[in-house]
Amino acid sequence: MAETKANGLASRVSGQVHIIGAGLLGASIGLGLRESGNDVTLEDASPTTALLAVDYGAGRLRTEDDPEPALVIVATPPDVIADVIERALLSYPNAVVTDVASVKLAPFETLQARGIDLKNYVGSHPMAGRERGGAIMARADLFAARPWVICRDEETPGAALSLIESVALQLGATPLEMTPQQHDAAVGLVSHLPQTVSSLLAARLLDASDQQVGLAGQGLRDTTRIASSDPELWVQILSANREPVIAGLEAFQADLERLLVALRDPTQQGARRQIADLLAAGNRGVARIPGKHGGSERFTTLTVLIDDRPGQLAALLTLLGELGINMEDLRLEHSPGAQIGFAEIAVLPEVAERAVSDLRERGWRTL
Amino acid sequence: MAETKANGLASRVSGQVHIIGAGLLGASIGLGLRESGNDVTLEDASPTTALLAVDYGAGRLRTEDDPEPALVIVATPPDVIADVIERALLSYPNAVVTDVASVKLAPFETLQARGIDLKNYVGSHPMAGRERGGAIMARADLFAARPWVICRDEETPGAALSLIESVALQLGATPLEMTPQQHDAAVGLVSHLPQTVSSLLAARLLDASDQQVGLAGQGLRDTTRIASSDPELWVQILSANREPVIAGLEAFQADLERLLVALRDPTQQGARRQIADLLAAGNRGVARIPGKHGGSERFTTLTVLIDDRPGQLAALLTLLGELGINMEDLRLEHSPGAQIGFAEIAVLPEVAERAVSDLRERGWRTL
Repeated sequence: MAETKANGLASRVSGQVHIIGAGLLGASIGLGLRESGNDVTLEDASPTTALLAVDYGAGRLRTEDDPEPALVIVATPPDVIADVIERALLSYPNAVVTDVASVKLAPFETLQARGIDLKNYVGSHPMAGRERGGAIMARADLFAARPWVICRDEETPGAALSLIESVALQLGATPLEMTPQQHDAAVGLVSHLPQTVSSLLAARLLDASDQQVGLAGQGLRDTTRIASSDPELWVQILSANREPVIAGLEAFQADLERLLVALRDPTQQGARRQIADLLAAGNRGVARIPGKHGGSERFTTLTVLIDDRPGQLAALLTLLGELGINMEDLRLEHSPGAQIGFAEIAVLPEVAERAVSDLRERGWRTL
Repeated sequence: MAETKANGLASRVSGQVHIIGAGLLGASIGLGLRESGNDVTLEDASPTTALLAVDYGAGRLRTEDDPEPALVIVATPPDVIADVIERALLSYPNAVVTDVASVKLAPFETLQARGIDLKNYVGSHPMAGRERGGAIMARADLFAARPWVICRDEETPGAALSLIESVALQLGATPLEMTPQQHDAAVGLVSHLPQTVSSLLAARLLDASDQQVGLAGQGLRDTTRIASSDPELWVQILSANREPVIAGLEAFQADLERLLVALRDPTQQGARRQIADLLAAGNRGVARIPGKHGGSERFTTLTVLIDDRPGQLAALLTLLGELGINMEDLRLEHSPGAQIGFAEIAVLPEVAERAVSDLRERGWRTL
């Protein structure tokens, strides 16, 4: 965010910003835009929710004296998004209206079918969220360095598009242009499919014995973490993005069926090859994910043993700072009841060897 | 491990320990047992692998002068485990023989079918591993605080059982007794099923565009991390544990089919309820995972904004130490190119409020 401002790419919105829906996303946008000096007003179908967000600093309630806002941001649940966008376009005919719903085509088509004039509407979707929702979880920097998809239409005026890009930049996000179809196919694959698969996997633990779940390791924890997300919200998202989600699940299902056929009769010719091919496809798939966590080749991971007590990790990180070793990523790994844990620290490959020898010299146990 | 030793529960093995198979698990056991003062010898089908593990400090090669070992630990790939156990029992008729393979019933039944005398054999399975294998990844503390399943038979002599428990304790693990059937059903559910599902999910990314994978967030990264595991090893594991894996995948498949039916026709009565129920089952399933990562109710998570530069996180952790706030878990979260990141710090609920106010007073930005 600091960088963006320093580059002078984003400034305040010229006029008021009105946010409809004061949950996690709406309140986070309010907090962030107020930090950039914007005048932000809020409303929510639940007066309690609106007041909570106001108390939290995300904006103020609109009064009769307020002029028409320059920008309206709709941040309601997906089920009502089209209705609220329509109402906003009619109530504030000169305002640019955007929404931040995680599905883009369905509301757009609904509004088109109703014959609504959409020249002031630009759909968008910040790729940010948390497992838990509500204004109470909001933070001004929720969108920092996340992609913010902006869906332009051929007829979208340049000024409206620039305004939404400016908002994304003010919040520290990276604006990306896509069509609604491109957006929905992409999030269907990289967000809605993993969510669904994680939920179905976690559901398998319902019948498990305590002894069985007692053997759970980090693999199970990581694969099921997002299964704790809100079912009510996700029913709406999956229903609104049915086609890409169904396509992804059907392709998954076809691979699963192939795997099951091979597993059921492993003496059949090529059965083991079939299983290995499916697992190898997973290797190549995960390698396609960019960034620090996915791009394992970019960094070398050091594993350092630490005692599970206050001060140890701080001492390690302080030492790394003194040694001039920049930590690209950090992951703590320890089990319940463990007296020791491991810090997995990603560093640039060229400093890894020196880091290990420096740490060992100073008495740290490392791989 | 320190605790175990302090309690005097584990001591050295009385006699030599011979390890067959010098990969990640064999070499890690060798390193750990040598730290406890044991005389460890190693062999591997690949002389190069054996010498690498020796260089790495995991043990020494056996010589003709060496007496029969007191304990033989078989740590070869699953495909050859039964053959190697058989050979060990015949070569060293007075030694206790164990193995550390991740499937327990199939090798046991194979050996029984061959009429091998199994009075000196105790199967076991330390629940530890890494995505990458080989002696080069070995560490003495790989097993620290992990469950170590020991499969006893009615006829297993108590002395043999005690010996394997002592080895688990020396390596800092927690011994757990199960039957081979119980073990295989448990790992089929909590390890082999997530591995398979993660691989099938990651395989979906093969056809994705760069634009699509560019929208990837932490959810996709977490759900696909273990999909980078070795296909060759996992073909062997899945093939050796077919029945529990097939049962788990078929139950998953049935839920998936129910979800698809509901998604394909959302106007059908109860369709949305059906989807919500499946997602809610995932909520309840993930809540069953014990421990720091899974038991989200045990701890409160604070989110603290940190600059992505050396020293910031160290300063934060040092401050927490000074404030007397014990960190139960830590997770760093940031995106490629981000100038800022977030540390998610799990603390006991009773100190959370004080931690937030203390941190804010000192200028840290926190949720």
